[in-house]
Amino acid sequence: MTKLVAASPFRTREEREREREEKREAVLLAAVRMFNARGYHATSLDDVAASLGISKPTIYHYLGNKEQVLVECVNRGLAMLRTAADEAADASGTGFDRLRAFLCRYAQINMDDFGRCVILTNDEVLSMDSATRFRARKREIDAVVRALIAEGIADGSIAPVDVRFASFALAGALNWPARWHDPDGTLTPEQVAEKLVDVVMNGMAPR
Amino acid sequence: MTKLVAASPFRTREEREREREEKREAVLLAAVRMFNARGYHATSLDDVAASLGISKPTIYHYLGNKEQVLVECVNRGLAMLRTAADEAADASGTGFDRLRAFLCRYAQINMDDFGRCVILTNDEVLSMDSATRFRARKREIDAVVRALIAEGIADGSIAPVDVRFASFALAGALNWPARWHDPDGTLTPEQVAEKLVDVVMNGMAPR
Repeated sequence: MTKLVAASPFRTREEREREREEKREAVLLAAVRMFNARGYHATSLDDVAASLGISKPTIYHYLGNKEQVLVECVNRGLAMLRTAADEAADASGTGFDRLRAFLCRYAQINMDDFGRCVILTNDEVLSMDSATRFRARKREIDAVVRALIAEGIADGSIAPVDVRFASFALAGALNWPARWHDPDGTLTPEQVAEKLVDVVMNGMAPR
Repeated sequence: MTKLVAASPFRTREEREREREEKREAVLLAAVRMFNARGYHATSLDDVAASLGISKPTIYHYLGNKEQVLVECVNRGLAMLRTAADEAADASGTGFDRLRAFLCRYAQINMDDFGRCVILTNDEVLSMDSATRFRARKREIDAVVRALIAEGIADGSIAPVDVRFASFALAGALNWPARWHDPDGTLTPEQVAEKLVDVVMNGMAPR
């Protein structure tokens, strides 16, 4: 069978869209890593652009200005947490088991580039509107943790703890790796998450 | 008995020193609160000075430049933690009891202005030398936590946990209030500390 059309030097619409998406991802990843490593204030889009061999207007083209880039990074991390929360809400098992599974995933996300960005981003650097949305979405995640704890208390798999303070303590213990976890360390994020979740679920007192 | 000398309008050396110390403290407290509320980068010494009705050179006179002011704030917080750590090391009781007492104090300090500053200050904003000293002093505190956990495991009062990850989880849970604790809330820092420490010491599983 003879080819009717020679290979075209023009890319298809799908190819162009895929390429655009790949470029946008590369910019986003370079930006989030620089935000995480240097802090938002100390990061300039010029440096992000230089790290990719592109110009700042190219970043504007794909993602917008510096705050828009940060908001997109934070939204990525929040979306990962949201997915994990929805999975935990839909899962079967005791409250303890579902909380444990969610917290392992939560801790892992917090060691990922975008999850770290959620933790490391302080409200002050965002516009009032973005900060309001950011807080609301973090509260949604917290509400899922509290619901899982309450379900565990109701089904007897979790001790009758103070739900609010338990969720604060768990979040703190599992947010903290965003500040100290070394991605080049010997343990994988999965292993670190397991070890931290073991500590917070079992406590320090002998059983 | 007749007074030999009339009340002098000149202050004594002690009075002058006390006044100098009081002014230095007022500057330090205004600065640490602004650093904590706005972030280091977004705080200017002009604003700190204005909040006290003084000029920036007056701050230079008492404490030095902005980084020196921050270093002094951080050192205050670290000194409070160090004192608490020394007390825990010298106390009697099981490892569990001494760890519990230290963690309550640790959590309270982290809700204090200077303790919050230790938590909220990222290495990146410090000079290389200051950052190195800062990390070393934080490691000393961590070493005390690990020693208390190890002693508790040895005397049977603490479960055979992974010491390193237990100290990470405890620190995370108890550092976190620096980011969310509302000093005007209904619970005192002591009460918040007790509740958080209960959760981390007892865990989530029923006993």
